[in-house]
Amino acid sequence: MAPAAPILTRAAIVAVGSELLETSRLDTNSLFITERLNGAGIDVTFKCVAGDDRAVLSDALRFALAGADLVVVCGGLGPTDDDVTRDAVADVLGRPLRENAALVDHLQRRYAARGYTAPMPRNNLRQAMVPDGGEVLENPNGSAPGLWIEHGAHVVVLLPGPPRELKPMLTSLTARLAARASGQTIVRRRLHIAGQIESQVDQALHQLYGEWAAWSPPVAATILAKLGQIDLHLSVRHTSAAEGTAMLERAIAQVLEVLGEVVFSTDGRRLEEVVGELLASRRLWIAAAESCTGGLVTSRLTDVAGSSRYVGTSVVAYANEAKTALLGVPPALLAEHGAVSEPVAVAMAEGIRSRAGADLGVGITGIAGPGGGSAEKPVGTVAVALATAAGTHARTFRFFGERQSVKFQASQAALDMVRRHLA
Amino acid sequence: MAPAAPILTRAAIVAVGSELLETSRLDTNSLFITERLNGAGIDVTFKCVAGDDRAVLSDALRFALAGADLVVVCGGLGPTDDDVTRDAVADVLGRPLRENAALVDHLQRRYAARGYTAPMPRNNLRQAMVPDGGEVLENPNGSAPGLWIEHGAHVVVLLPGPPRELKPMLTSLTARLAARASGQTIVRRRLHIAGQIESQVDQALHQLYGEWAAWSPPVAATILAKLGQIDLHLSVRHTSAAEGTAMLERAIAQVLEVLGEVVFSTDGRRLEEVVGELLASRRLWIAAAESCTGGLVTSRLTDVAGSSRYVGTSVVAYANEAKTALLGVPPALLAEHGAVSEPVAVAMAEGIRSRAGADLGVGITGIAGPGGGSAEKPVGTVAVALATAAGTHARTFRFFGERQSVKFQASQAALDMVRRHLA
Repeated sequence: MAPAAPILTRAAIVAVGSELLETSRLDTNSLFITERLNGAGIDVTFKCVAGDDRAVLSDALRFALAGADLVVVCGGLGPTDDDVTRDAVADVLGRPLRENAALVDHLQRRYAARGYTAPMPRNNLRQAMVPDGGEVLENPNGSAPGLWIEHGAHVVVLLPGPPRELKPMLTSLTARLAARASGQTIVRRRLHIAGQIESQVDQALHQLYGEWAAWSPPVAATILAKLGQIDLHLSVRHTSAAEGTAMLERAIAQVLEVLGEVVFSTDGRRLEEVVGELLASRRLWIAAAESCTGGLVTSRLTDVAGSSRYVGTSVVAYANEAKTALLGVPPALLAEHGAVSEPVAVAMAEGIRSRAGADLGVGITGIAGPGGGSAEKPVGTVAVALATAAGTHARTFRFFGERQSVKFQASQAALDMVRRHLA
Repeated sequence: MAPAAPILTRAAIVAVGSELLETSRLDTNSLFITERLNGAGIDVTFKCVAGDDRAVLSDALRFALAGADLVVVCGGLGPTDDDVTRDAVADVLGRPLRENAALVDHLQRRYAARGYTAPMPRNNLRQAMVPDGGEVLENPNGSAPGLWIEHGAHVVVLLPGPPRELKPMLTSLTARLAARASGQTIVRRRLHIAGQIESQVDQALHQLYGEWAAWSPPVAATILAKLGQIDLHLSVRHTSAAEGTAMLERAIAQVLEVLGEVVFSTDGRRLEEVVGELLASRRLWIAAAESCTGGLVTSRLTDVAGSSRYVGTSVVAYANEAKTALLGVPPALLAEHGAVSEPVAVAMAEGIRSRAGADLGVGITGIAGPGGGSAEKPVGTVAVALATAAGTHARTFRFFGERQSVKFQASQAALDMVRRHLA
């Protein structure tokens, strides 16, 4: 009879990459990894960053193995000589690397599929090396495979560093990890809130915080201010995921009662997804006429799969002439109110709605900066209009921050205006 | 005669705090610490986060001391029982804690100055405990003092966690650290490369790596694969910042000779900035007709300040009818080749160029996924065309990954096509 698989309770995360030791980069993967491990009931007790140095990484792995039963290593799995994770893991576990024939084949097919005619560089084959006894984890979004290694009382999981590769791979491991953990699970929910500032939300929820702290087990809340959005993180550690989830549902219902429609998502969906689902479910078409956002509203809408079913033809029009020629904004209106004004936003919204044959038209005009501001209309002034069959309304915002930050907040305000209209 | 103070070359950073192991917080102090240490000529070879657990932190300190001659510990210096940094450092160094009379006095005066009349809480005195032989570092912005401990060949520096306390304290230590370092400084440069995969770049530069490693002092190189981009980080440790910079300039010239025009930036500028500068300097206008990128190319172009001087009216057109009505794409072309094809991309590029009155027209049509793919044109197939006064050319790409990832890579390919045309 095989011995029972060891139970995983304490995890260490080791991020690999010299660039993560520089002044411009942080290991952000560990946040996602922590969330998934917590969800599986595994605590993260330690995390570290090691450069692309086989000796330093080996020491870090030994240290992580001494304090944790699960070690998640991310990064350093690429094809180059400075990708040392496989070698260091092989050293520390005493499991020599062997070339995996299936991986060689996979890498060669992947390389050929990219249309290169030259032979595959030899160093690509480094990615086919597997420590003895390691199980290959498929990477649908990149060439470097992951690895799962059972080693005595430990499990060592190796994942590639790029988040778009790491995230789906870890997600597909979550059930397997949870099955190996014991006891309690940490259930988390994330709420997204638009159009509020952090202290408003904090003040509104203050009484609830106290109530939740007295629940058994207590529900913990953290507020996080993001650009154009406040996030509220709720979590509870419970022996039953279902009961923990039910507790969070009760807490969320209380939040909705206090905050109302400013909460646009209680399940982590992004604003463009929420808007997209509202549009799709009502079979409505939307089109945007964007000036200061430069296409960002349309780009965010089209980030969502299936958005071709509801995103109509949109126009990015900076110049006054384009606003007139393409959107039918009267030159007199531009002359009287200036390009950044609610009447012009309204004319843009109505113009794109009728020209694109859409149900909803969005018009956005503003000053993203750093130039172009005035005393009357400083940088960050943005007029947003929404035209529908029921009429058109407009609102003027004043955003702070740099150009990209103003662009994003303006896109957020426009999408939120659409959401509130449809909700 | 006192022995010469040991020279500091390798540093480890240990951040203390259970909140830094949660899903919403990162240790950002280490970026600032790294910048200051690098400036003083000290490399950061390892960093880690430990929770408020005396045993885990002690292990982390032992590990840090084994690999570094300078260990900077931040956080865990407050007055409460879960502030364990002093205790763990005392344990590991074998230097018992002693109450420092001057600190007791300082803490009492600070407490009284805040206007409290009740006696100071006893646990505040924890902050007056100093490991034997430790030197107190003044904290002008908080109650927790820092500590500097000489320990054999090592220096251990303890700093409080809040950035507004840590930053000025570390700044005032910079000269002292530089005096203890080898007198060298670390100079860094970052290059961005488009249209290549990591292993191609690595192979092309392999000989240079060897050459640089033999330089005195050696130039270190790290390759990093990002979405649609490869980054090459170069660094050198030198007694003279000017000479170090000159060495990196020589290395960069060699890279350019080997890699040529695929290098789009040698100073960290993003692709949209490079393209924007080329357009602005030649007083050229650009306009885009975007299908699968959904406005992302135009949004990235308009992320750059001053882009209203060169970004003309652009159109996001998913539907075939819009491609025909707004861009003049002949229906027969769409019927014959399909919407995702080089002839259609060419017609879109030429259409937007003439309709927007721009010098350059970009046309992009593709399948961002997850739906819409076929055996002949799988998800990720994207045709990009660039129309200029000299004619129009097109290219078909096949990108991997999710929808947003395909969108970004397509925008990168389009912007890079513009850059190469102008460069």
